[in-house]
Amino acid sequence: MAETTIVLYLFKRLHQLGIRSVHGVPGDYNLVALDNLSEAGLNWVGNCNELNAGYAADGYARIKGISALITTFGVGELSALAAVAGSYSERVPVVHIVGTPSTISQKQGALLHHTLGNGDFSVFANMSRNIASVLVNLNDPSTAARDIDRALRECYVSAQPIYIALPTDMVLRKISAKELETPIDLALHGNDQETERDVIENITKRIYAANNAIILVDACAIRHRVVDEVHDLIDKSQLPAFATPMSKGAIDETNPRFGGVYVGSVSRPDVKEAVECADLIISIGALKSDFNSGGFTYRTSTKNTIELHSDHTKIGYATYPCITMKSVLQKLLNTLDFHKIRHTESAKSAPPVLKNEEAEKSNSQEITHSWFWPHIGNWLQENDVVITETGTANFGIIETRFPRGVTAISQVLWGSIGYSVGACQGAALAVKESDPSRRVILFVGDGSFQLTGNEVSTMIRQGLKPIIVIINNEGYTIERMIHGEDAGYNDIQPWKHTKVLETFGAKEGEYANHVVKTRKDVDNLFKKGNEFSKANKIQVCTCNSECFANRVTVFFALIFSCFFPRIFC
Amino acid sequence: MAETTIVLYLFKRLHQLGIRSVHGVPGDYNLVALDNLSEAGLNWVGNCNELNAGYAADGYARIKGISALITTFGVGELSALAAVAGSYSERVPVVHIVGTPSTISQKQGALLHHTLGNGDFSVFANMSRNIASVLVNLNDPSTAARDIDRALRECYVSAQPIYIALPTDMVLRKISAKELETPIDLALHGNDQETERDVIENITKRIYAANNAIILVDACAIRHRVVDEVHDLIDKSQLPAFATPMSKGAIDETNPRFGGVYVGSVSRPDVKEAVECADLIISIGALKSDFNSGGFTYRTSTKNTIELHSDHTKIGYATYPCITMKSVLQKLLNTLDFHKIRHTESAKSAPPVLKNEEAEKSNSQEITHSWFWPHIGNWLQENDVVITETGTANFGIIETRFPRGVTAISQVLWGSIGYSVGACQGAALAVKESDPSRRVILFVGDGSFQLTGNEVSTMIRQGLKPIIVIINNEGYTIERMIHGEDAGYNDIQPWKHTKVLETFGAKEGEYANHVVKTRKDVDNLFKKGNEFSKANKIQVCTCNSECFANRVTVFFALIFSCFFPRIFC
Repeated sequence: MAETTIVLYLFKRLHQLGIRSVHGVPGDYNLVALDNLSEAGLNWVGNCNELNAGYAADGYARIKGISALITTFGVGELSALAAVAGSYSERVPVVHIVGTPSTISQKQGALLHHTLGNGDFSVFANMSRNIASVLVNLNDPSTAARDIDRALRECYVSAQPIYIALPTDMVLRKISAKELETPIDLALHGNDQETERDVIENITKRIYAANNAIILVDACAIRHRVVDEVHDLIDKSQLPAFATPMSKGAIDETNPRFGGVYVGSVSRPDVKEAVECADLIISIGALKSDFNSGGFTYRTSTKNTIELHSDHTKIGYATYPCITMKSVLQKLLNTLDFHKIRHTESAKSAPPVLKNEEAEKSNSQEITHSWFWPHIGNWLQENDVVITETGTANFGIIETRFPRGVTAISQVLWGSIGYSVGACQGAALAVKESDPSRRVILFVGDGSFQLTGNEVSTMIRQGLKPIIVIINNEGYTIERMIHGEDAGYNDIQPWKHTKVLETFGAKEGEYANHVVKTRKDVDNLFKKGNEFSKANKIQVCTCNSECFANRVTVFFALIFSCFFPRIFC
Repeated sequence: MAETTIVLYLFKRLHQLGIRSVHGVPGDYNLVALDNLSEAGLNWVGNCNELNAGYAADGYARIKGISALITTFGVGELSALAAVAGSYSERVPVVHIVGTPSTISQKQGALLHHTLGNGDFSVFANMSRNIASVLVNLNDPSTAARDIDRALRECYVSAQPIYIALPTDMVLRKISAKELETPIDLALHGNDQETERDVIENITKRIYAANNAIILVDACAIRHRVVDEVHDLIDKSQLPAFATPMSKGAIDETNPRFGGVYVGSVSRPDVKEAVECADLIISIGALKSDFNSGGFTYRTSTKNTIELHSDHTKIGYATYPCITMKSVLQKLLNTLDFHKIRHTESAKSAPPVLKNEEAEKSNSQEITHSWFWPHIGNWLQENDVVITETGTANFGIIETRFPRGVTAISQVLWGSIGYSVGACQGAALAVKESDPSRRVILFVGDGSFQLTGNEVSTMIRQGLKPIIVIINNEGYTIERMIHGEDAGYNDIQPWKHTKVLETFGAKEGEYANHVVKTRKDVDNLFKKGNEFSKANKIQVCTCNSECFANRVTVFFALIFSCFFPRIFC
């Protein structure tokens, strides 16, 4: 019987799932495991710290579908918790593997380093319990393969992190290699057929009866992998389709049926009208968090809404548990008679191009948010990966029109500042492995950059070539808008951003720095086809403009006037 | 009746405990609280990220006795967990204040940002439950003052972190200010008198009966504030006294009664003999973790040991619960007849000076560990604060003889790499507030520096002037010695350390960089009285020597040959 080791079984399964690079930081309890990565065809990233590694794994998973992160017991795993919790919150499948002390030491309750000094070896795993869809401890060779397969399936299907503890004395224990010949079953369990038939019938009736139905696509459509079905539905039904901040990029924005981004009462007026006046909303993968819903200001009626989710379906007020959207969408695509769908004239017309005309017309050279974000859409190209930091960039990007195939990465729900730099490393590495022609562009504020900027070092080390745009507005601008506009706690230490690449070891000729201070500078740099835009080396572009701090887009102004007071008081 | 607000009550209590600066990162759920710091006489640090802030708070508490850390709900608090867990493990009192969503939002289970998106607002506090000696949620103005006082007392007395949740809508709620007039009672509850009398009698008998008793001082003697009593006991009894890696610095090393550092079987032979041949060991504040005990290789007999702890006493095999060491030590100092204590001749002689003569005699210019660490002791001056990183520095410093009054800061038990850079920021700030004449010197490896090096930015911002010695040995040397000597995962991206201060915004003339490559370079730079040694600006000294990676001290060699295999197999 062919044999392997527990660690190789695990790593080969990761490889079968499409993972080629593993993020993390070496630590004494995981070193022997790391020896086995290359044999399984996996590259070790070696991040600057575990938080960055966690963010990077999240970014990698958003491109490749799943990712893995290896940390060491206690010190390492806890350093990554905020990132893993973010993946849980944002529904991103990350396999968190923690090298733990030997089962013998654990049984003895030994007073080891990296412990709380109280002999409790379960405390850290317990801290991960609420941010992992499954926890397994590979402390038994006779069940290890089954535990690994079950956990990895759950990670993929639930689109959430899992936690795998790997004790040092189990790493090289022999187990059967036979199961490796059969790929892990990642298929969704089919819906109950009778219930589903009823659901399809009901939905079909409502769609035929509607005069101006619309499609509203949200984050879970991406996370639960129904974007292809959504595109098919838009194309075949020709219904107007809207995104949310969290699903930005999921709908092809060059499709004339794309209507814009709906954010409740802070939507642009044309979007708000189109969504809220629809007599049927086909909502796919909704995740109505505060920032994603304009502070809970949807003015849509439950009665007129069909909600498709990964774990249930709602038609009006009726809930159908366990009826998952992927199967429902596929059935609808097969059975709907698309000629029977009615469209109002207004819904048929192409949506207005996002452009802040007032800002465009101005002769000012100030780089304002209201000018920058709509403007930058002209420079983006097909299949770019655009990462935006929690903060002004996350709100600004809503007003950028994407070319076809652009992937947007951000944390609208978890909203951890510093996330984007780590995520950029992970996404850029995933792109390098899967389609190196895609550019990776990061927009990050100077405040957020200070949390995780050291991860630029890993980008250099891994030969990645992102364009890093640092919006230098001297502090935590998003927080100034919430509270403490002039407060010292929203100030930061000024960094010399043009020195960052050199300090972190980029070699002469293999990097470039740029500084833009005016609109003209932006237009000269962000020009299609020039060296900068070719993105064939790692580049930092610092936008030095005080204006970023003061002039915000219409959307911002609305967000901060209507919506923040409601959340914080 | 005089009134105040919940937040001011809390902050004024922190001030009463001696805290002058609060570490942390601003976030939307804590901004209103931060507005109130200055009114309570507190300075806001504003760290680069929460992990660094947590490490800094730990370093600050090790100088000032207690510290405070403010983070925001979810994203912020979880980022700090590895640091707070470290403070719990190492017994350092840190008040962790978390700004949380309003009680109303929490009751509604609103789908807010910085949550897991499941309406569960207790999950993050629960993750802190096992790394805090008390958790309080200030959600009720009628009990807030009492809760604050109880928690702060517990933090101080237990010498461990506490967790205080402060919902946004409670920050400015009015409460009585009356209790502020009475300082929080920080005194220990006295021991049960009858039991204590018996304990004193027993200990006294044993001390008089011993021929060559010794004193073994460990970490909890520092943490539970009995260092003065220990010094008195050494001076009055004239018994030889030994430290452990975790209590290094607790005993005045210029005192002729100081015998060295005991680390079980990996101790220097003279130390090992003196401790293990003693017929009575007075152990004060023992914390026998793996690294602290030479991998559990104490060859001392329980029968001949008196163990004084913060929460119990042991005499031979008998345990006396709740008999705390502070009172016992004070009683012993008052009642012992010190003339009755016997000393053997050998125990009376001064301990040998720590000096690696072989390394000193060599004509080599290589900066090896075995040369560097004993050598650097000559350059240290009274009252220096010496921070050493987990890794080679933590082991090397054991062989450095300290001048009087030196405070050593390190994490022997928790051992989180990157800790020392944050801790250096906190310690340097505490020193600036309490005794700016003290120098702060950090020894950190290039690998560990990558985790938290951004915190140098905060040092610059706060006008701190540490000497940062970066031991540049091209990777995770301590890990190479454990496993994977030539493995790629122990390599790191090379940074230009001489650019770090400039990149993080240090101003021309207010910083200095140094590079040493030979022993002669070290001797020229580390010279008493020169500009470098005056430490009147922030300085980075990079030790560039491949030798650091290869040549280790005798102690290292022993550690890695005897001790690691036992832990990791």
